Amino acid sequence: MCELLGMSANVPTDICFSFTGLMERGGNTGPHSDGWGIVFYEGGAVREFRDWQPACRSKIAALVKQYPIKSQTVISHIRQANSGRVCLENTHPFVRELWGRQWTFAHNGQLKGVKKLPLGTYRPVGTSDSEYAFCWILDQIRQRFPKSPQNLKPLWNLIEQLSSELSGYGVFNMLFSDSRHLYCFCSTKLCWITRKAPFAEAVLKDAELSVDFKKETTPDDIVSVIATAPLTDNEYWQRMEVGEFRVFKAGKLLA
Amino acid sequence: MCELLGMSANVPTDICFSFTGLMERGGNTGPHSDGWGIVFYEGGAVREFRDWQPACRSKIAALVKQYPIKSQTVISHIRQANSGRVCLENTHPFVRELWGRQWTFAHNGQLKGVKKLPLGTYRPVGTSDSEYAFCWILDQIRQRFPKSPQNLKPLWNLIEQLSSELSGYGVFNMLFSDSRHLYCFCSTKLCWITRKAPFAEAVLKDAELSVDFKKETTPDDIVSVIATAPLTDNEYWQRMEVGEFRVFKAGKLLA
Repeated sequence: MCELLGMSANVPTDICFSFTGLMERGGNTGPHSDGWGIVFYEGGAVREFRDWQPACRSKIAALVKQYPIKSQTVISHIRQANSGRVCLENTHPFVRELWGRQWTFAHNGQLKGVKKLPLGTYRPVGTSDSEYAFCWILDQIRQRFPKSPQNLKPLWNLIEQLSSELSGYGVFNMLFSDSRHLYCFCSTKLCWITRKAPFAEAVLKDAELSVDFKKETTPDDIVSVIATAPLTDNEYWQRMEVGEFRVFKAGKLLA
Repeated sequence: MCELLGMSANVPTDICFSFTGLMERGGNTGPHSDGWGIVFYEGGAVREFRDWQPACRSKIAALVKQYPIKSQTVISHIRQANSGRVCLENTHPFVRELWGRQWTFAHNGQLKGVKKLPLGTYRPVGTSDSEYAFCWILDQIRQRFPKSPQNLKPLWNLIEQLSSELSGYGVFNMLFSDSRHLYCFCSTKLCWITRKAPFAEAVLKDAELSVDFKKETTPDDIVSVIATAPLTDNEYWQRMEVGEFRVFKAGKLLA
């Protein structure tokens, strides 16, 4: 299994605190030592950092922990390999362009037999089930919506339906973004929290670290964090149900 | 104008020395202060580092200078903006997938009117001429070769022909890679050097730094470096002619 971390915020926000907690699980407090990755959106573009080395020992992870890169949408992943060997090709998140937007995908679970699904425009670079599933999703979206739709509801319905179909192949917890929205599907395990005023202190579960969000924020800030398991132990995290699909934008839950 | 740097090597090699020279030109010894980027291939996957901040002051560039990431193919770019504002979307190199391979592109020059060329599958995320030209090249390759061709010569001919056509729109010096080959086109300014045994010392032009490659290499290593302008001042760099197209693989000049 792997662990997922996502963020959606209404102002550019750094994810150093949550990322620090997640990285501990990458070979230290958790067994996910087969690589890690993080994608930060900045406008329509992405900054990607990725390593097949354990997160807890990666020099690139150390930079990302210390350097407050501000973003409104972030997707991160730490890997415990099951399908596909440990290498950069198989390290999430995966990124592809559709409609002139960068789409990002990270997945937790195994999808046995998923490689029987037909592919079109998008082809995997590595050998993981996850990247294959991502290519299939984007192909399905491209076929149904050759251009970005005006009305987003049918697109969201399609993403939910594709996610549900993929969860039939095994476990499919995923974070997915088109640079504007953060889509989350829970097949077995995913939870989220929305932080807004009045902000309080938060204490990490996995490292000796706390942050007083009152000092780091303005009263208008809204930040949602989505994770496989709660990252703090003094806050309430909303657990998602099996088969639940959620859409966040600018920190807010839209659907 | 911008500056380009590429590397092709037969063994995973770090580019810290050449990158250090190039980064000085990013706002220090040179005026290219509108962002920088570097893409390292590792197997079929890429590591990308990119920043719209001046290279000489970027914290991410500082990490890349110090951390010897080993790769057989590297493309890097520092930007002095002319088409498209200074932002991450317009920061080279650009990356897209075709045939399950990551293709990387960096360009030096302006291409007036290039946006009249028709696009298909690939769409730019930013507003630069360069990314538009890259999308057009990949579309043309995809149309002509829906699958990776067995015989590479017609593919190389196509890339040369497309490059030549693009140079009709202005200045088109480019570095381009399909993860296995490094393609170089010179419209006005590009030069290269191949280092192999017997290795010697090299002295950077732009920083107080020299390296004794004898100590860093084995006798079988072959490393070619391609740059807009020579990075060292005690070695002979081969200047490319106007309209010249070159293909490197594993450090060697193939065509």
